[in-house]
Amino acid sequence: MTRPTALDLHLPDPLPEEVAELFHKCQEKLGLIPNVLLAYAHRPEKLAAFSRMYNDLMLGPSGLSKLEREMIAVAVSAENRCWYCLVAHGAAVRVLSGTPELGEAMALNHRYADLEPRQRAMIDFALKMTRASGEIEAADRETLRGHGLSEEDIWDVAAVAGFFNMSNRVASATGMVPNPEYHHQGR
Amino acid sequence: MTRPTALDLHLPDPLPEEVAELFHKCQEKLGLIPNVLLAYAHRPEKLAAFSRMYNDLMLGPSGLSKLEREMIAVAVSAENRCWYCLVAHGAAVRVLSGTPELGEAMALNHRYADLEPRQRAMIDFALKMTRASGEIEAADRETLRGHGLSEEDIWDVAAVAGFFNMSNRVASATGMVPNPEYHHQGR
Amino acid sequence: MTRPTALDLHLPDPLPEEVAELFHKCQEKLGLIPNVLLAYAHRPEKLAAFSRMYNDLMLGPSGLSKLEREMIAVAVSAENRCWYCLVAHGAAVRVLSGTPELGEAMALNHRYADLEPRQRAMIDFALKMTRASGEIEAADRETLRGHGLSEEDIWDVAAVAGFFNMSNRVASATGMVPNPEYHHQGR
Amino acid sequence: MTRPTALDLHLPDPLPEEVAELFHKCQEKLGLIPNVLLAYAHRPEKLAAFSRMYNDLMLGPSGLSKLEREMIAVAVSAENRCWYCLVAHGAAVRVLSGTPELGEAMALNHRYADLEPRQRAMIDFALKMTRASGEIEAADRETLRGHGLSEEDIWDVAAVAGFFNMSNRVASATGMVPNPEYHHQGR
Amino acid sequence: MTRPTALDLHLPDPLPEEVAELFHKCQEKLGLIPNVLLAYAHRPEKLAAFSRMYNDLMLGPSGLSKLEREMIAVAVSAENRCWYCLVAHGAAVRVLSGTPELGEAMALNHRYADLEPRQRAMIDFALKMTRASGEIEAADRETLRGHGLSEEDIWDVAAVAGFFNMSNRVASATGMVPNPEYHHQGR
Amino acid sequence: MTRPTALDLHLPDPLPEEVAELFHKCQEKLGLIPNVLLAYAHRPEKLAAFSRMYNDLMLGPSGLSKLEREMIAVAVSAENRCWYCLVAHGAAVRVLSGTPELGEAMALNHRYADLEPRQRAMIDFALKMTRASGEIEAADRETLRGHGLSEEDIWDVAAVAGFFNMSNRVASATGMVPNPEYHHQGR
Repeated sequence: MTRPTALDLHLPDPLPEEVAELFHKCQEKLGLIPNVLLAYAHRPEKLAAFSRMYNDLMLGPSGLSKLEREMIAVAVSAENRCWYCLVAHGAAVRVLSGTPELGEAMALNHRYADLEPRQRAMIDFALKMTRASGEIEAADRETLRGHGLSEEDIWDVAAVAGFFNMSNRVASATGMVPNPEYHHQGR
Repeated sequence: MTRPTALDLHLPDPLPEEVAELFHKCQEKLGLIPNVLLAYAHRPEKLAAFSRMYNDLMLGPSGLSKLEREMIAVAVSAENRCWYCLVAHGAAVRVLSGTPELGEAMALNHRYADLEPRQRAMIDFALKMTRASGEIEAADRETLRGHGLSEEDIWDVAAVAGFFNMSNRVASATGMVPNPEYHHQGR
Repeated sequence: MTRPTALDLHLPDPLPEEVAELFHKCQEKLGLIPNVLLAYAHRPEKLAAFSRMYNDLMLGPSGLSKLEREMIAVAVSAENRCWYCLVAHGAAVRVLSGTPELGEAMALNHRYADLEPRQRAMIDFALKMTRASGEIEAADRETLRGHGLSEEDIWDVAAVAGFFNMSNRVASATGMVPNPEYHHQGR
Repeated sequence: MTRPTALDLHLPDPLPEEVAELFHKCQEKLGLIPNVLLAYAHRPEKLAAFSRMYNDLMLGPSGLSKLEREMIAVAVSAENRCWYCLVAHGAAVRVLSGTPELGEAMALNHRYADLEPRQRAMIDFALKMTRASGEIEAADRETLRGHGLSEEDIWDVAAVAGFFNMSNRVASATGMVPNPEYHHQGR
Repeated sequence: MTRPTALDLHLPDPLPEEVAELFHKCQEKLGLIPNVLLAYAHRPEKLAAFSRMYNDLMLGPSGLSKLEREMIAVAVSAENRCWYCLVAHGAAVRVLSGTPELGEAMALNHRYADLEPRQRAMIDFALKMTRASGEIEAADRETLRGHGLSEEDIWDVAAVAGFFNMSNRVASATGMVPNPEYHHQGR
Repeated sequence: MTRPTALDLHLPDPLPEEVAELFHKCQEKLGLIPNVLLAYAHRPEKLAAFSRMYNDLMLGPSGLSKLEREMIAVAVSAENRCWYCLVAHGAAVRVLSGTPELGEAMALNHRYADLEPRQRAMIDFALKMTRASGEIEAADRETLRGHGLSEEDIWDVAAVAGFFNMSNRVASATGMVPNPEYHHQGR
């Protein structure tokens, strides 16, 4: 197996049951084990914590659709130039939307994506968080409210954008390699 | 109770048992419930996921000392100008190190902190991750190895720096307010 | 026909013979008329001048391969976040190289492309030109010579990188729309 | 003859007729052969393509006056800190306007130039193109329309600003040296 | 005595009378001789010029309160990441205001300080001066007038912000060390 | 008399003797009263403090020649895009050096000025102070020592660069207008 990152880290041997089970579920559902999970698995508690947060954020209940959460993920990853996340989550946007051009535009320049004003406002907020979070003020949250976002929705935009600002950096810092399958999904 | 953020979010009522227990433990051990936990508690699954990751990263086993992890937290928070994290984790550096000036220097300009070369290398890596993670290359990891960091240590630097790049942004995006007690700790 | 840009400009009617001929040649050779040519054609002298420079630079004799010139084009366009050029020239890199991942990596983060050191040096020079051309000094040219580039090669790197710094800006300023066919080429 | 750039490139010998003719015309009309032309002449097709585009853009018919086109050239060159273009086109602004201070202000800080609102809007657009072309949106073009610019005029602002973003970079990348005569023109 | 900077400079011996007198006054009034004065004293004319300007600006008559002038000092020093000035003037804000949190917020992120709109406008102007003074235009001064600042008040904001942009840089360039007493004042 | 700045400030009437004397001396020696002095004169103590510091720094004894101090002034002013200081001190470099091109190059892009390595190192230090003073470390001072600068010389580079970082900002913040005579001096 190719190493999932540029670090010389190894899966525990034998694989703890909960890790094996997670990997099995991925293989069944996605046809692959995302390298980010293989990377975290060198210490299973880290994998469990990461998966728990990821699953809640990206798949749990929210006023934001799953596609919208993936769009935020890609816009943030584009700002941070994260190879791993752009490839993996770019694919997710293409697949979830059924529109390859949308995935491309979010990864290359979101201004050319065909977004509803509410979505554009969410992306703009996520990008201000990415570039200059210390400059966010009450007016920025007020803009989101003006587009109909609830307090929980604002939290979710912040949490997803925050999460990918973490994830992008862990991926880039460790030289994480995207699974080659992603390149072809949803084209 | 003052709201922990600028969002109009509420604690579940009644408080789920695991949340009440966590809050009780904080009050006992720290003398306060950190506002970041009150903020996440509006949806308990989010609090649980956050706490699990935080506890593993900042308190779990690692080749980095707890103080070193807090120093990374503060240096990253300074780059991102995160009021909440600078106040809360600045206090942690002062308390853990017993040297108020160290907490100040990490928050204001780490170049004036009295750091070992290995620590300075960790901080420099964390700050490159913060400013321009997409530009990290093999040579940056090699520098850390040259200072004696193991592969797991490099992962931990990346994971802590990544985590505070998330946390800083969630705090700033939601207008999180630090508990006033932090200002006076460890002076 | 969809407008090739966000400007309300029109093709001359009737189409001058040399323009009709160029469009015919494109249709035959590429299966499409690139929107950049439709955009320039509102005043045929502008189209002629643009095509002449483009053809010499990208298709004429040079110590740089056509693929290398397209790689510079995409790396520069990524820095400038030019939607049109990333879509059109990203396709060219995929097609010319036969390696979809190379096109993706040049568009998203060239550090993850599998480049020879000489190619990486060319891209680094092109990106310094893009970000801070006023800071280029003798040492930057010397680095290229150290990788075996001739004086003419250095000129060609400069000319291609310069050209796409123009082209990216004209495309973004006028809201140029890439032909949809590009999205699917070379996947 | 001093070399026109820091590259060791040579004029073809004998000089092709069309090059000799162009140089002769420059000498007669301008009293000098601009070094940019000597630089491009090492491969005559490159000189021909450059001259054709330059002549159309800067001297051809346009809703922008020649002085306005030169003002855009200088403002863009100031942003890019291009020594060659600031010296050569700063002189052009001084000569065409008859106001040395205007040339100085465009080169040093255009906010201190005495501009009509329409001109200021053109310069602002050209500078946004120079700094962050990927962020240009419909509203930016609408601002120019609000100042009375036609669709062709907007194209021309974009084309001139784009051209100098190329030219600045080729000049800086090759270490182009301005003809000393420019320093004294129009003072 | 510890050296006040990283430069190997020495106090004149014997100390000129006016220097001795100034140091004596500091010791009496402040309980310490600020290292910035010890640093300038290697050539007494430089100390005299610095003190004269400092005293007029920070202690002389002005429409800005002494606390407001110190708040500008700290906000500017935060932007410039000046260790010496943040420590020394952060203490001054804490002491003059009687509110430790205000000193912290000005040093870490002024957006979290509890400021009157007029004060916020002054700080915003001072920070624009710090980051991009060349972009200041009439509208920026007009904003200050709209908050009730007189022409003299605007001058004083400019002069204080300008002074700390000098002082921050001299301190950082020479490696100036803050007196340790400052860390504890006004906590 | 034209106002020296965009602020509505007035000279004291009658003019205090020491101010009148200073203005008289300027008129005699320079053929003009620099607008910066007219600007500061609205409150004579401010003029006195400014002049005292300026005269010591720019005209007093130093290991840096007067021309070198003016070169630092212009390089810093170029970075800050200060119209007033570029015009006034650009003239000073032209006059003191007898080489108009040197004044131009310092104002437009110092990399194209013909500087001794020691001078280039001074300018590089001054520009790092201007852009990112908080990042200066011991190694930067060591570079200056390696070029033969004494401790006093390093102080003087820092002090001159610091002073123009103040002066540039006061000039830009107040809309200071250069005396028209400067444009023509030393051409």
